[in-house]
Amino acid sequence: MEQQLIFTQHVTEEIDRLADRINPARTFVLVDTNTSHFVLPLLQSESEAVKGATLITIPSGDVNKGLESAAIVWKALTAARASRHDLLINVGGGVVTDLGGFAAATYKRGIHFINVPTTLLGAVDAATGGKTGVNFEGFKNQIGVFSEADAVIISTAFFNTLTHSEMMSGYAELVKHALLTSNKEFTKVITHELDDSQDADNSTLLRLLEHSVNIKKKIVDADPHEAGLRKALNFGHTAGHAFEAMALKQLNPVPHGYAVAWGMVVETILSHMIKDFPSDTVHALAAFVRRNYGTFHFTCDDYPALLSFMAQDKKNHDAAHINFTLLEKVGHPCIDCTADDKQISTALDIFRDMMGI
Amino acid sequence: MEQQLIFTQHVTEEIDRLADRINPARTFVLVDTNTSHFVLPLLQSESEAVKGATLITIPSGDVNKGLESAAIVWKALTAARASRHDLLINVGGGVVTDLGGFAAATYKRGIHFINVPTTLLGAVDAATGGKTGVNFEGFKNQIGVFSEADAVIISTAFFNTLTHSEMMSGYAELVKHALLTSNKEFTKVITHELDDSQDADNSTLLRLLEHSVNIKKKIVDADPHEAGLRKALNFGHTAGHAFEAMALKQLNPVPHGYAVAWGMVVETILSHMIKDFPSDTVHALAAFVRRNYGTFHFTCDDYPALLSFMAQDKKNHDAAHINFTLLEKVGHPCIDCTADDKQISTALDIFRDMMGI
Repeated sequence: MEQQLIFTQHVTEEIDRLADRINPARTFVLVDTNTSHFVLPLLQSESEAVKGATLITIPSGDVNKGLESAAIVWKALTAARASRHDLLINVGGGVVTDLGGFAAATYKRGIHFINVPTTLLGAVDAATGGKTGVNFEGFKNQIGVFSEADAVIISTAFFNTLTHSEMMSGYAELVKHALLTSNKEFTKVITHELDDSQDADNSTLLRLLEHSVNIKKKIVDADPHEAGLRKALNFGHTAGHAFEAMALKQLNPVPHGYAVAWGMVVETILSHMIKDFPSDTVHALAAFVRRNYGTFHFTCDDYPALLSFMAQDKKNHDAAHINFTLLEKVGHPCIDCTADDKQISTALDIFRDMMGI
Repeated sequence: MEQQLIFTQHVTEEIDRLADRINPARTFVLVDTNTSHFVLPLLQSESEAVKGATLITIPSGDVNKGLESAAIVWKALTAARASRHDLLINVGGGVVTDLGGFAAATYKRGIHFINVPTTLLGAVDAATGGKTGVNFEGFKNQIGVFSEADAVIISTAFFNTLTHSEMMSGYAELVKHALLTSNKEFTKVITHELDDSQDADNSTLLRLLEHSVNIKKKIVDADPHEAGLRKALNFGHTAGHAFEAMALKQLNPVPHGYAVAWGMVVETILSHMIKDFPSDTVHALAAFVRRNYGTFHFTCDDYPALLSFMAQDKKNHDAAHINFTLLEKVGHPCIDCTADDKQISTALDIFRDMMGI
């Protein structure tokens, strides 16, 4: 069965329709301690499937995204004698859909599961594409499998409990998908105002989200196991992960999407230097990022540490070059590009200049 | 890459050839405390790939086939910073290939792995077909995935350290595959003598094994995720698991293959009763099983317990009927057949009569 992506403001109707079609003997709902509080009551009051389901709760937060939490899910399924024909509904952000997907894909070698992402970041990224997993020994998603949910129900209905920075963090992935697509998409995304009163019902945001998730889907369908093309989705993430890691080391962590936003600026600069990516687009992106994400403060004394984080982040072929996904122009990613320390340092100089630090 | 099945008496040559082709940066070899002692020294002395590999050892036995042992493998891979392009070679019986396959398939969402089964049962069954997994909360293979090894190297070279009952236990699966194929294959398998001095080098056994594994491969390729046809491979296992479970409960465990051999006799009797399976083949099988496996002793007082085990063993659609794979004739399996308690009791009566108990 191909994965269904459903964009809707009527989540509970869709859950019940899908549950009817899958027709499991038993339904299970996975939440974390956050979504249990903020989202579950609504689903329980409106969805027959959720009302009749067995509830499984895991502690919230990336620090709890480990085998211990997966075991909570496996134990609950085992205790209820769940069969391969039963259904798990994952309700939450990326931690819940990654972990719930992994638990479902490995219980009796795979049962049905549906993802209901409750954050913008989860909706635009984690919940689709089949990457499931848990952290292990301090490494992110070290244990996991590729396994697509039967369906993903994407809605903006739960976003009203998110903070502004949680929203912006997810929005960075929309910007990334737009950069992988077309100038038209890019312009549309960077001119949308998240807090626009014209979009109080989030209908414009939902349409943007639909576009964005379908861009990802197209890439994933062409290369589900990341043999090549899918690496395009790593755009912004090599430099981004370095910012994220450095901020964490300085005990001043930044949201993932903020680090990716800054990383995309660095990597469009590199794309300009190495692949002749148009400079006006670099400037348009930098202005958008500076306005919405502020900046990350660092000096040239921090370059060696940032370069070292970048070298660790990717499977690099040799020590002298770091692997990047770059862009020739908007919509034309180029995977497995490399840059040396000198080029990256120059890009960081230009980044600091553009971001006013 | 399609799974390669290699039948050879030159195991180490094949390991090195495959390792050359996969060309991993790092190679890991998984053994248990048995194969570490009996098999590893030979491989280390003759194979360059094994000589240069990092060794991972887990405790032997089904009781150790759990997440704790999988974590030993994941930890060793993590400690060595293994990448998605590295290789795990699983050397052992079904426990090692099931567990090693699961660990490899879930580490960074899947690395290369090769199975080198060292028992007849492992060679004819567990090592091929992509069913990986570990036990959980007392349930066999409760956590796992479908993931085929890059290659399986099948040889009789390691069988000289197996006991007669270990050999016979594996041989039951060859009989099963023959019953799913043709009268010719069935006759060939039940007339082969395992201890025949004419086959001191096991070349005839290796050819029988090649036939048998290819029968399984054909079925698995047509239905890898057991949606239908693959259930044919469950032939003999509904009654067989009931004998196995009862023996275990009586603290007098029997080898898996022995239980399957008796189970096949019961299920050919049922096939005769329900599907008109030819009675002369029932008699030929019963005589072969009685001669080579002896029998399992039980009285009609044990029927309710046996029926209860059968009801638990399968995902039955209703309480009044138990699900079986039956045979219309040799080579014509019929999946999702049902029998009621009365029919099964009659089959058990006939079984006791035929087996002289």
